[in-house]
Amino acid sequence: MSIDLSPIGFVRGGRSEATDDDWGSVRARIELDPTRFAPDALEGLSTFSHAEIIFHFNLVPETKIVAGARHPRGQTDWPKVGIFAQRGKNRPNRLGVSVCTIIGVKGLCLEVQGLDAIDGTPVLDIKPVLKGFLPRGDIVEPDWAGEIMAQYW
Amino acid sequence: MSIDLSPIGFVRGGRSEATDDDWGSVRARIELDPTRFAPDALEGLSTFSHAEIIFHFNLVPETKIVAGARHPRGQTDWPKVGIFAQRGKNRPNRLGVSVCTIIGVKGLCLEVQGLDAIDGTPVLDIKPVLKGFLPRGDIVEPDWAGEIMAQYW
Repeated sequence: MSIDLSPIGFVRGGRSEATDDDWGSVRARIELDPTRFAPDALEGLSTFSHAEIIFHFNLVPETKIVAGARHPRGQTDWPKVGIFAQRGKNRPNRLGVSVCTIIGVKGLCLEVQGLDAIDGTPVLDIKPVLKGFLPRGDIVEPDWAGEIMAQYW
Repeated sequence: MSIDLSPIGFVRGGRSEATDDDWGSVRARIELDPTRFAPDALEGLSTFSHAEIIFHFNLVPETKIVAGARHPRGQTDWPKVGIFAQRGKNRPNRLGVSVCTIIGVKGLCLEVQGLDAIDGTPVLDIKPVLKGFLPRGDIVEPDWAGEIMAQYW
């Protein structure tokens, strides 16, 4: 069973190479495909403070995809956990999901801050962040999850 | 440009028909594809309280996909907003992203509560919810976004 997707647009600007940390101040644009969309696709998005971006880690080669367990970032002082218990990019289907701050919308262009996707990344969807879709109840995570995020933004 | 994905597994159990509200108490399983995965893919996931599920709204026909603006849920007392300023299912690429509570992991099976995807839904990815990936800063949303979620969970 195969599911065929087309990018709705691309990340433009921001970082040109993937690095692990300090994404918080990075600004970039998401430019929608002008052959498929008009500005009304983004209408009202600027009434939200945050957007969730679904994108494709297109630079990860198929041979690097992990289906089992590994140490996050290859660091053996963190436990070996399954690929679905971490958010690393070398994963089946190579999907990234990340929340960023909306700076503004202009025509087919969404300007954002703190999106951890590099220049040229294919974008598959944009969703507004609704408070009602945040995790319900207390969030519990293992220690390594806090350590890996310490310098991320 | 086409991006080809394969389901990593499927939602089993839970609701058999999509309805708008009262998802909070629904329990379901995500069963990983046994031809591609072993239990180590989910190793450590139960040390997290919540998971983010990326899935495909496979029952939405292509003819129903909206590329422009519409009233959320067709309700004209809410403003007409772009498809990327709402989270409805009739969207380009038909991707759903939703956070649910982890009940437990057993073999290739993740049991969850509060996943708003019906029995048989193709699952494209599972990610743990890390506090560090929640929205940074205050979340602002328009009034309709709170109203649409009032009975959702």
